Order: sequence, then structure tokens, then C-alpha cells
Amino acid sequence: MCQLFALNSLAPAAVTFAFTGFSARGGATGEHADGFGLAFHDGQACRRFVDPAPACDSVLAQFLRTHPIHARTVLAHIRKATQGPVQLANCHPFVREWQGREWSFAHNGDLKDFHPRLDGSYRPVGQTDSERAFCWMLQKLRRRFRRALPDWTRLGPAIAELAEAIAPHGKFNFLLSDGRALYAYGATRLFWLQRRHPFGTAHLVDHDLTLDLATTNGPDDRMVLVATEPLTRNEAWQPFAPGELRVFVDGEEAWRHVPAAVTGRLQPGLVMQPA
Amino acid sequence: MCQLFALNSLAPAAVTFAFTGFSARGGATGEHADGFGLAFHDGQACRRFVDPAPACDSVLAQFLRTHPIHARTVLAHIRKATQGPVQLANCHPFVREWQGREWSFAHNGDLKDFHPRLDGSYRPVGQTDSERAFCWMLQKLRRRFRRALPDWTRLGPAIAELAEAIAPHGKFNFLLSDGRALYAYGATRLFWLQRRHPFGTAHLVDHDLTLDLATTNGPDDRMVLVATEPLTRNEAWQPFAPGELRVFVDGEEAWRHVPAAVTGRLQPGLVMQPA
Repeated sequence: MCQLFALNSLAPAAVTFAFTGFSARGGATGEHADGFGLAFHDGQACRRFVDPAPACDSVLAQFLRTHPIHARTVLAHIRKATQGPVQLANCHPFVREWQGREWSFAHNGDLKDFHPRLDGSYRPVGQTDSERAFCWMLQKLRRRFRRALPDWTRLGPAIAELAEAIAPHGKFNFLLSDGRALYAYGATRLFWLQRRHPFGTAHLVDHDLTLDLATTNGPDDRMVLVATEPLTRNEAWQPFAPGELRVFVDGEEAWRHVPAAVTGRLQPGLVMQPA
Repeated sequence: MCQLFALNSLAPAAVTFAFTGFSARGGATGEHADGFGLAFHDGQACRRFVDPAPACDSVLAQFLRTHPIHARTVLAHIRKATQGPVQLANCHPFVREWQGREWSFAHNGDLKDFHPRLDGSYRPVGQTDSERAFCWMLQKLRRRFRRALPDWTRLGPAIAELAEAIAPHGKFNFLLSDGRALYAYGATRLFWLQRRHPFGTAHLVDHDLTLDLATTNGPDDRMVLVATEPLTRNEAWQPFAPGELRVFVDGEEAWRHVPAAVTGRLQPGLVMQPA
């Protein structure tokens, strides 16, 4: 299985500290040594760095740990191969253009018997179930919103519907973004955290490294972090409910959706309502 | 105006030496300081590195000059902005997926009044004439070859036709690849060179740096280099004829096409014939 990490921030921010902890799981403190990738969104464009080498000792990962790239939305992934060999074509995040924006997607999980009909709008380059799911989701969104690109208020419910159609095929936790919003879906395991003023210190789980967040952030900054497993030991990471989709915009939760079956047990009234 | 560089090789090869000379033109020995990019093809996938900083002093360019990435086809571009601001979205090479392969495209030139109707298959992310041309070319290829991806023997003539349709709009020298073949079109200015056994030494134009090619290549290696201006001073770079498309496969010229008007003056019989 793989691990996911994402940042969504009001102001452009670096992920060098978080990636230092996260990438240690790519072969050092974790077994996810089959490649890694990061996608940095910048306006409509997205800059992707991928490498089939283990994140803990790849020279590209070392470059990314030591050279901060500031972005408002970042997706990261470390891979433990389940479907498809260890190669560049199978490294997440995957990126495709839709409506003049670059979309990035990363998946943690494993889908069985998921072979939807693809009409050719998007075809997988590699052999993963993950890229297949991404291509199918974009194909469905493209058919549904033909004329113009809607914002997250219309995309959120549509993406929740697609996630629920795929989730029965196995484990399906994913991150999706077009740089305007971060869509995070936690079928089985995903955590999130908001950082805002007053900023404290953060201590990595995977490294003996502490960062005083007040030195790197101003009073107006705020950001959301999402991860398969909490990256820091002294912050209040919150678990996603099973099947929950959360939409983050400008470092804040904008909307969430919990499937009806789960809502009954958790918090009625959250379904399809803006947060 | 921008500058182009490409490699097509039988065996995976590094471009650190060539990129050292080429990237010096991105702000040091040349004025192309508005960003740069490289696309390394690996099977069906393509790994793209882009940066809006000048290639001569970008930390990413420095990383790419000192950490060889081996690939059989590489496209590179240094930008001097003519259309579209200096930003990530306007950095070449551009990459899109078609038929499960990633295609990369880089352009040197300037197109006037080129606003073709785009059906939504591919839309520009940035504001350049170049990305618009790339999207339109892929759209046309996609419509023409709906079922399966043809090889270069069918794609070459189709790409030559598209290039000739765009070229009257201004200057249009470009590089295009899907990792199987390198398509290079020289409307006004483009050079190429083949290296094969016995390998000599190469001396960069833009740096006081010499490489003994025999130490980095074996007797069976062969490769083609394409560039807007020759990168080395002691090798036999050949100019493209005006409007010439050359297709390179496995480090060798596989096919070329010269427009009829030019052929009359140059070499009759080369039109639409395998080389």
C-alpha cells in the first residue's frame, strides 16, 4: 500500500519539513520504497516531480527536501507497488489537463476488478489501478461539465459520487486537485490537520526534527495538511470518517460529505451541506 | 525567441554535457532567461522538469547539469518570452497524453493570428502560441487516428502536413516526441548531428569544456542531436532545409520530408520517401 500527503494553504508555502518526515517512510522508517512523487500547483499549471527510486535515498528527493518550492496546493505520494511494476509510468501523482487546468491525483489503496470503459479522453500511461481510476473520474467529470469548468461547490458533490462508485472495488483513499481546491477522500484511512495563528511547534514522527511554525508563518497564514498517517506527534490530527470527502480551499475546510450510511451513525446534517 | 535542443539515442544516454552548454544560453552566453524545461522520455511516460527562472542560475537547472538522467529521447527548451508572461504555465516542453503515451512539444518561433478552433480534447494551460499549436496538432492527430496509435511511418507525413498548415503564421521550428520517435521541424533555423563509432571529442561553444565521447559511448552506440544553434564547435552540424521535417528513431534518421517548393531547388525525390 502507498501513503499520501497533501498541503492546501492560503499563502504559498514550502513542504520541505513535512516531506523530510514523509519521505523517510519511503524506505527508511516505512516500506514504501517503490517510487515517489510530488505535484506543486501554480495557478492553472502543475509541476510534477516523480522518481521510481526510494524516496529515502533518491537524489531528486534529497533535492526537494533541501530546496523549498512554494505552492498553495501540493500533493505527495510514496509508493509500495501493488499493481504495476516499479517504473516511472506508475509513480503518483498522475497529472492530466482538463479545461485548461492541470489536475493531479494520488491514491492509497488497491482496487480489484476495476476496468471501466474508457472512451479515449484520457488513457492510462502506466499499469496501475490508480491511474485507471483517475482517467475514469476525469472522463466522467468531462462528460458531466461539458461547457465550462465549475467550481468546487459543483465539483465536490460530483467527485463524492464518483468516489462512492469506485470505493466498493477495494481500498480507495485519494487526493485530487486542480490548484483551486484540494479534494481528499478517505475510504479507510486518512487524517487531516489545520494550522493557523497562534502557531506552535511541530515534531516529526519519522525524524528527530522540530520546527517552530511561528518562525515560518505570519499571523494571517493558515494551512491544511492531509496524510495517511499523522506526520507530527504533537499536533491534533483528525481522522476522516469512512467514505468522507473533504474539500479544502485557501487553507480551510470548505465542504465535506459523508455517505448516508455513515452519517446515520456520526453526524446527521453534514451530507451535501457546505461546512 | 527561444532555443531548442533534443537528443534521440539508441541506448539511454545523459544530456548533462550538452545541457551545460545549452543552459548557459539561458541568461549567460544568450538572452533566453525566461525559463527552461527538459522532458525525458521513458517508455510511454515522460518526466518533465520546468522552471520559470533563468537556466544559467536556476537551482533546478544546476541539479540537472550535475545529476545525469538517462533517456533515449530528451527535449529541452530555453525561453525568451514573446507571447505570455514569464511563469510556470508558459515553460516548454509542454506535455499531453494521447493514446496512453505522453507527448512532449517545444517550439522556437512566434506565431501571429493563430487561433484555431479547439474542440476541448486539449486546451492550453498557459498563454503561449506554442502550446496552442501543440493542442491543435494533437487534436488533429487524434481525429485522424481514432482507433489506435500509428507508428512514425504514418505519423510523420501527418505531422509534416500539420506543420505546413501552421508555418505560414510566423516562425515555427519545433520538436515533438512520444518516446518512440523524435519529430523535428525546421521552418527557419535548426541543425542536427549524428554521433556514432568512432567517437571523437566534443568542445562546447558556450563553455570551455571538452568531452571525449569515446569514454562515454561504446562501439554500438549512436545518437542524434538537434539544436537551434550548434552546441559544439568541432562537430559537423547540418542545417535543416527550410520547412524540413526529420524523424529520428533509435539514434538514426528514419524519414524526412521537404515541402515541394523547396524540393524543386534542393533534392528532388526526398519528398515523402523513407530516408
